[in-house]
Order: sequence, then C-alpha cells, then structure tokens
Amino acid sequence: MSSSLASLLVSGTFLLPTWRQQDCLENGAVLITGSTITAVGTRSELQRSHPGIPELHEPHGLIMPGLVNTHTHAPMACFRGLADDLPLMTWLQDHIFPLEARLDRPTVRLSALLSMAEMIKSGTTSFCDMYLFAEEVAAAAATAGLRCWFGEVLYDFPSPCYGALENGLRLTAELLDRFRDHPLITATVDPHSVYTCAPGLLEQCGRLAADHDSLLVTHLAETESEVHTCRSRYGKTPVEHLDSLGLLGSRTLAAHCVHLEESDIERFADRNVKVSHCLESNLKLASGVAPIPRLLERGVTVSLGTDGSASNNDVDLFSEMSSVAKVHKGVMLDPTVMSAETTLRAATIGGAEALAAAASIGTLAPGKQADLIVIDLDQPHLTPLYNLPSHLVYAARGADVIHSLIGGRPVMKNRQLLTIDESEVIARMGEALKKLRPGG
Amino acid sequence: MSSSLASLLVSGTFLLPTWRQQDCLENGAVLITGSTITAVGTRSELQRSHPGIPELHEPHGLIMPGLVNTHTHAPMACFRGLADDLPLMTWLQDHIFPLEARLDRPTVRLSALLSMAEMIKSGTTSFCDMYLFAEEVAAAAATAGLRCWFGEVLYDFPSPCYGALENGLRLTAELLDRFRDHPLITATVDPHSVYTCAPGLLEQCGRLAADHDSLLVTHLAETESEVHTCRSRYGKTPVEHLDSLGLLGSRTLAAHCVHLEESDIERFADRNVKVSHCLESNLKLASGVAPIPRLLERGVTVSLGTDGSASNNDVDLFSEMSSVAKVHKGVMLDPTVMSAETTLRAATIGGAEALAAAASIGTLAPGKQADLIVIDLDQPHLTPLYNLPSHLVYAARGADVIHSLIGGRPVMKNRQLLTIDESEVIARMGEALKKLRPGG
Repeated sequence: MSSSLASLLVSGTFLLPTWRQQDCLENGAVLITGSTITAVGTRSELQRSHPGIPELHEPHGLIMPGLVNTHTHAPMACFRGLADDLPLMTWLQDHIFPLEARLDRPTVRLSALLSMAEMIKSGTTSFCDMYLFAEEVAAAAATAGLRCWFGEVLYDFPSPCYGALENGLRLTAELLDRFRDHPLITATVDPHSVYTCAPGLLEQCGRLAADHDSLLVTHLAETESEVHTCRSRYGKTPVEHLDSLGLLGSRTLAAHCVHLEESDIERFADRNVKVSHCLESNLKLASGVAPIPRLLERGVTVSLGTDGSASNNDVDLFSEMSSVAKVHKGVMLDPTVMSAETTLRAATIGGAEALAAAASIGTLAPGKQADLIVIDLDQPHLTPLYNLPSHLVYAARGADVIHSLIGGRPVMKNRQLLTIDESEVIARMGEALKKLRPGG
Repeated sequence: MSSSLASLLVSGTFLLPTWRQQDCLENGAVLITGSTITAVGTRSELQRSHPGIPELHEPHGLIMPGLVNTHTHAPMACFRGLADDLPLMTWLQDHIFPLEARLDRPTVRLSALLSMAEMIKSGTTSFCDMYLFAEEVAAAAATAGLRCWFGEVLYDFPSPCYGALENGLRLTAELLDRFRDHPLITATVDPHSVYTCAPGLLEQCGRLAADHDSLLVTHLAETESEVHTCRSRYGKTPVEHLDSLGLLGSRTLAAHCVHLEESDIERFADRNVKVSHCLESNLKLASGVAPIPRLLERGVTVSLGTDGSASNNDVDLFSEMSSVAKVHKGVMLDPTVMSAETTLRAATIGGAEALAAAASIGTLAPGKQADLIVIDLDQPHLTPLYNLPSHLVYAARGADVIHSLIGGRPVMKNRQLLTIDESEVIARMGEALKKLRPGG
C-alpha cells in the first residue's frame, strides 16, 4: 500500500461483498487506498488496524459492489418515451431512425451524460455501451467518472459518424489503441448484428478484436425475424452463423439471445460466450423471454443489460433485477428459478465476467477496484430485513442508493452527484431537443 | 362550496387529471375545499377566480390522481423477504402459516401501518385489503389517513382472529354496519377462495354482501391447482362454481384470475365482475400470467393489486405498472397491448370502478374526493418528457412522489409522512419481530 495515496474507510451496518447472503458481514467496512480496495472486514477491526483514516460511515447503510450494466445505448436517453407501444419497425423507422439521422456529437455527449446521471443514481458503476459517435460516450464517462466499455457501432451502410465502413474499422482500431491503458475506459469492437453486417465485415471485426485482445460486442438472436432472416440468407441460426465466421469466443459478449436453439446454447457453453440479458427491453419490444435459466444450467455466464432508454425506458438495474427474478418464474411456472442470489450475481460479478474484468470489479475484495455503492436500509419498504439479496432484488429501488464510489472516487454522496451538474444537463437537454425536433 | 371549510390550491407544471395524455393541462391546478375537489383548471385561471387562497405550488411538479391498489394484505409487510424462491406450498406451510398462527393484534396493526407508509411513499391513496384481524387494518388506515376497503378473511377452518366461522360472519356484518358512513373506510365481505370455503359459506357471504350492498372480495383462479381442485370437487371451473352459487355480480372483486377459460371471461363480462390483476405476485409465485388484454377486449374492468409484501415483495404500484405494461407485450409477442394509457387507467379509475367508487375517486374532477399525488419531474430518469402516461408507467418510480393528499388532507409533504411516525414504526417492527421469531 503506497502511503502517498489517500485512504478512506467506508462503513455501514452491513457489508455484502458478494451476491451471497452467507458472505454478509455485520458492521462491515471497506478500506480504500487510491483506487483500490486494500482490506475488507468489520469496522472495529479496520479502525483498529488503520487508526486515523478518514471514514464515510453510514448508519443503516449496506455497502455492496456497484452494479454492472452490460448492454446500453446511453445516448438514447434523449428518445425516452418518444414513442411506445408500437410495432418494432414502426417505432424504429417512423420515430427513432429519423431522429438518429439528425443527431450530432454534442447531443450524443449530453444525452450519454444524462444516462450516466441516471445510472449513478440507480447504483450502476460500470456499463458497456454501443452507439454512434461512441467517442462522445467515452468522453462523457471520463467526465462522470463511470467505468465504461464502449464501441462505435459498425454495419454495412454509411454511418452518420464515420461515413464509409472502412473509416469505421479504422476508427475502432484507433480507439482500441488510444484507450488501451485508460484506468476507467476500454474500447470494444461492435458489429451491430448478423442482419446489418455482411459476413466479410463480421470476419474483419473478429480479426480486429483478436488482434487487440478486445471484447467483441454484438446484438444476437434478439427477434424471431432476425433468426428467420439469418436462416434464409445463410441457412444457419444467428449463433451458428457467427460461429462459422469464427466470432464466438470467451471475449464475445452477445446481447439479447432471446431466440436460441438448444444447440445454440451448447455452442455458447462450448465457446464460453458471454450473454447480456436485456429482459425489460425484450418484453417492451415484444421480442420474447430469453432462456436464461437454461443458459445458466449449462454454465454460460449471464449478465444483465438495460438496453437503451428508448426501449426500456430507463437504465435502472434495480428495476431490471426485480423483473428478471420474477418474470422467469412466471413464464416457466417454477418459483425456484432465478433466485435473488442468482439474479444479484448476474448484476454484479456476472457482469464483470462478461466484460473480462472479474479480476478487478464485481465483488468487494482486496486488490479489486473500489467500485461500491451504499444503500439506505432505514426505509419502510426495506423493513423488516431477513435476507439482503432478497431485499436488493425484490424490494430495493435505485433511489435507495445514497453514495457511490468508482475506482475509489466518490461520484455521488447523499444522492448528490459530484461529477455531473444534474440541473445543467437537464436544462441543456431541453435546449437540444428544440434543435432535434423543431416542430416538437 | 361551504365557506367554513378550508381551501387549498395545488398547482404544478402539469396536471394530468385522468390517464390520458390528451387531458394534460400545462400549468394546471386543483382547487380543494374540505375533502373535495371544487375546480380543475390552469393555475392562473384558478388564482384569478379564487384570490387569496393558500397554495401548494410545485415547480416541475405533475399533479395526478392517487393510485388505487385493489388487492393487498397490508399486515404481511412483516414477512417481506422472509422466504423467497420456493414452491408455493413450502413457502406457505413451512414459513408463512407458522408465523401467521402467532400474529397478534398489535403486530397486525403495526405491520399494516408499515405497508401504509410504503403505500403513501409510492403514490397509493386507496387500497383494498383482506386479512386476519382486519379491524386493525381499518384502525391503521384511519391513523394513516389512507382510503381503505377492508375485510376479515373468512374460510372453513377456525380463525386466529374470530375462532369459529359463525363469529366471523357476525363480525363481518358488524363491521359493515359500523363503517357504513365512514368518510375513508369501507368494510367488505371476504371469503378467501373457492378451495378454502365450502359452497354454504360462499352462499352466506353472497347474501351478506347483497344485504349490505357491499363489495364481495375473493381470490379466484389464482393457480392451476386451484382450478384442478375445483373441477374435481364440483365439476366446474372456479368462475362457474362461484356463478352457480350466485356470487358473480358487479360488486364482486376477483383477485388474480390467472387461469380463465374463454367461457369464464364471457361470464365475467356478462356479470360485470371486476378483476384485480396482481401480476408481480403471480410471477414471483410462478402462478402464471392472467389474460388481461383479453379481459379488457371483452370490456371487463381491470384494476391493479400488489398482493401482500410476502409475495411481491412490495406494495408499490409504480413498479407494478411498469411490469404490467411490459410483461403482457413480451408474453403475447405484441408490443401494442397494455399501452401506457391502458395501464395507467387500470391503476387509477380502473381501481375506482373495481371498488364501486368511480363517482368519488380515480380521476381529478370537481365533486370528487381530493385524492391526489404530486410527482417531481425534474430528474434525469424523467428527462426528456414527451408523454406523461409513458413516463408514469415506464420510467417513474414510487420515490418520485413528493406530496400526497387524501380527501384533501396532506399525508405526505416533501416525502415526509405527516400521519405516520416512520422511524417509530420501523423501530417497533424490529421489536415485534423479536417476539414473533424468538430464534431470529
């Protein structure tokens, strides 16, 4: 432990360093030095062994790992509630695409920042984003102090960001290099999907990701129509198609995965592919319910994603956890699937594993990054308390998160954002919309 | 309007007096005199026509009808998170029933009050409750100032509250009389279900409700096993069975209604039966998903219920609305069902209709009771704003409710409860649990 780095003790009534009730520590504390957790234990123990260190003590507080959102389109916050309850193609073609074509860099950055304000205020400390003008997302994350994986979305047609496809591949390579050693931000390779990317593009993406030892992030098997299109074009399921192009591996993060054959699930298990489960978006857009209990049974790593605010309409992982734990039970008619612990695992270390970052985030342990949140348990809806994972999944809300630290840096204290000027972002969003929708 | 009653103007950036975006009024206000709404209009209009009246003005505030929760077991808050992710019978027999047998009146009242604190803090102003020692629920509601329908649960076996069944019927009749003219609280007749009540008891309940012109509230067609049991005992579906006993009518409020035949749905429509849809509970207990879009198509009145906190694990109708609007789309693979407006309707005037109270609550209109809530729109997750019902259903949280008035009486201001001592209730619940579960 370097003595030149600032230390902080964060303590509360409970510490839940993992997703398991059995690991819960009463009167627990986390010692942070610089960006790193240096000790985890009881408050009195750590106070004794490290006297005189500044302390953030929250009576009635629960200290836990920050949540990890593995699939977002943060800049889509500006479309939240613009159009709902519509068939997917009407929604996209009549409402989202026309506005996306008019997006500019400042609006993307502002809208991403708005999503990040919401993420921090609902307990997320890491997220993985795919969008246009993705550099702006990275810049906003640097401002917000959020841990971020980001990729410029790639597809066969010209992009409002980079124009011709070859520029997109060049931009991605450049971003991978530029962010290689960034403490918070990591670039990824993001082909949009099997239905918007020709096999050649997918192969190029696969090589780029392999060369840079980077994550490859893509939408996969989201809708029935995607599966149908893929089968008729290539005679393969989307999963088989990606596999035939060499794109399925332990650094492949596949979002959605709603429509999988049993053989696709086996393939995911064999190739160690990671899944981002975006239940609320899949429900709202009527795509269906992904076979998550079956994937888990086969040992596939499952993480949670909110998708963008245009299709959810939020980026709140507490709400997502509650939906995930309930919906699979109701759909499978089995109350034992997706237990609170299984669900909390997916939202924490599962997300870390999906991002190939389990060595540094996802639980609270010495040597890991100090990405943690503090929940205020002293509330009617969290009373009484029998089991922490149960409360976190079934009863807690994003608004119960009162403090948040990312890489040891406080980003929210007593629900006041410290890295984002919330009122300014809200006010500027109003101005931006006047430009985006002049008739609006 | 009597000049001896106190008046108050409540105003904000928006007024949504119904569930429809088209009814939204910018800079709207509600004039309240005593317990009643006397005018609805723009703030400037009402300030001009009623000068000098005290005003509760919320910049960035949305004024809307309080939510109506038509199926709760408020005293079950003390079991929140006690046991989850278990088969229904294990959960009931090994965990809930043994503790319920040890409940006493003070614990029921305290636990009901805890649920009511949570209800007010998440925007509910009316609820319909079924439980043991139901008088205690009524007493707690009177304290909390919440509008309440309540019934002592009746079944074939002896009750911890009233002992032998004849006492239960006598108690119910007495409660119907005692609360006949109460401004906030109404008694109901509550046979538990077709599988716990013999036909004779159900008929007695039907007569009692008819004689007193009271609601008859019951659980109905909640699980496949209930349908199976009913068919093998009586050769009828639960709905047919109730109908054959004369219990289906416009004052019958049936909770759950998950497993319905098409002919049951027709019967509901013919008899004008009201449904309380408890989606989150049905999901969590793996009962299934009720055919709500089909019921609505047939013109059946649908309202929303959270069920008790032991099976949800909350009494938060904002969370329930979000689930309802999303889950039916995902299960039916149709993004147009359960639109935001349809869902908001169920949580407001639908609930009022289910409780035969649409003349007095459920929308904001002159002559109705002043049951209203104010939402703080000035937040990242509610930015930007295109459509109010969309935000209320898909993005807002219970914690966004800042003020609440019931029958003109402020019960929460700036999220501080005015009728319940929140810290005291939380602390006393801790003490009560030590008695209820001495082994802890």
